[in-house]
Amino acid sequence: MPNIRLDVEYDGTSYAGWQRQPNGIVTVQGEIEAVLSEILQEKINLAAAGRTDRGVHARGQVVNFSTRSPLEHSRIRHSLNCLLPSSICIPSSQLVPDDFHARFSALERQYRYFAIPEPSALMGRYTGCSHGDVDFALMQHLSSGLRGTHDFSLFSREDRDGNGSLCTVREAGWYRHKGVMVFHIAANRFLRSMVRGIVGGMLSAGRGELDPEEYLGMLGGGGGGMRVKPAVASGLFLWRVRY
Amino acid sequence: MPNIRLDVEYDGTSYAGWQRQPNGIVTVQGEIEAVLSEILQEKINLAAAGRTDRGVHARGQVVNFSTRSPLEHSRIRHSLNCLLPSSICIPSSQLVPDDFHARFSALERQYRYFAIPEPSALMGRYTGCSHGDVDFALMQHLSSGLRGTHDFSLFSREDRDGNGSLCTVREAGWYRHKGVMVFHIAANRFLRSMVRGIVGGMLSAGRGELDPEEYLGMLGGGGGGMRVKPAVASGLFLWRVRY
Repeated sequence: MPNIRLDVEYDGTSYAGWQRQPNGIVTVQGEIEAVLSEILQEKINLAAAGRTDRGVHARGQVVNFSTRSPLEHSRIRHSLNCLLPSSICIPSSQLVPDDFHARFSALERQYRYFAIPEPSALMGRYTGCSHGDVDFALMQHLSSGLRGTHDFSLFSREDRDGNGSLCTVREAGWYRHKGVMVFHIAANRFLRSMVRGIVGGMLSAGRGELDPEEYLGMLGGGGGGMRVKPAVASGLFLWRVRY
Repeated sequence: MPNIRLDVEYDGTSYAGWQRQPNGIVTVQGEIEAVLSEILQEKINLAAAGRTDRGVHARGQVVNFSTRSPLEHSRIRHSLNCLLPSSICIPSSQLVPDDFHARFSALERQYRYFAIPEPSALMGRYTGCSHGDVDFALMQHLSSGLRGTHDFSLFSREDRDGNGSLCTVREAGWYRHKGVMVFHIAANRFLRSMVRGIVGGMLSAGRGELDPEEYLGMLGGGGGGMRVKPAVASGLFLWRVRY
């Protein structure tokens, strides 16, 4: 059976996250699977690179599925783009080898977080707000401390998937673009709400509300779940997945 | 009575345009006036630099009003930002001379239109879509033809305000920014839906559906209303007003 990869972009504002939910709760996975099943006339289960939280966006989510249908992937993609709500789209599709799995074949996930100092009517949908100035140099310093392998359990919501809480961060840092502060991070894996925890804690430190040493100390882990105030979901984007 | 100027930013997606309407139709002016009247305990009428259409956004709308209230303008601004919906905000306020009028004192309005070649889940809210490639050099050429004083009646919806249909365009052109095509235009005044007409006609010409000479010929005017297919509202921003 052909194995098809889709690149997926979505505005997560009005979805209860990526993952399919029962009882009519509207999720991105649920929407795409429903439309795909209608197009292909068979039940489709998507594998996905990242399980984004409620309200989180994606610029480069990756999914795959197998189908008995003889339809070309580009035809499937076209039908999807016609039938999906405008808040979800499929910029590209491709036929991939049988052993490609959007989740397990991924080598690295990249996320970005966009933050602005004051609320904005035009940018609010796609940013978080730091509510005032923050110590940008300090946040840069903290993000360089994230690189390497750490136990991120204190920056994440508890989620017992049995894979532990060690993640290896290859790259993490802030840059500014026209008044917007942008945090980028690349790691082999991410725990639940982890980027929001990392960013929320940094913003607290940047406002002087959290001791920087305490922040870095939490990278030692310990369990017990989120110890920082997570940043709001609207500023976060699953940016890119490397295979 | 103090005369107060507010700079206003809004996401126009869910508003029936700027101008106050009867029968519970939700407009940006209606929302701000309702909140202001509540804060100041008197009926407030706003004068505004630009009367944007349904679905059009503003980065730099300017309004003013007089009030009997002794409240400082910065306090009024703060209260507004607390009480207004998140799709409208007031980035700044100032006390202005008695003769300042947001509409009549304005020397120039600047608009921008953002267009992308393919639909996008993340950018759709703030862009129009050209649905395929367009001849960018041709659109540049057409926009240089807009400069000067012309009768824009064939690029506008009819609206009899008695001021004729001549507008003086100081600047008009396209640039590209990361895959987005951006049109900017500055003029002393704009007729109803005029920027959407100008851009819609250029996109038609850029796709080869409208003869460029016919486009430029329409700058001679003639009346009878919009002769081109206007671009969708979502890509348009009232960008800045000069006084």
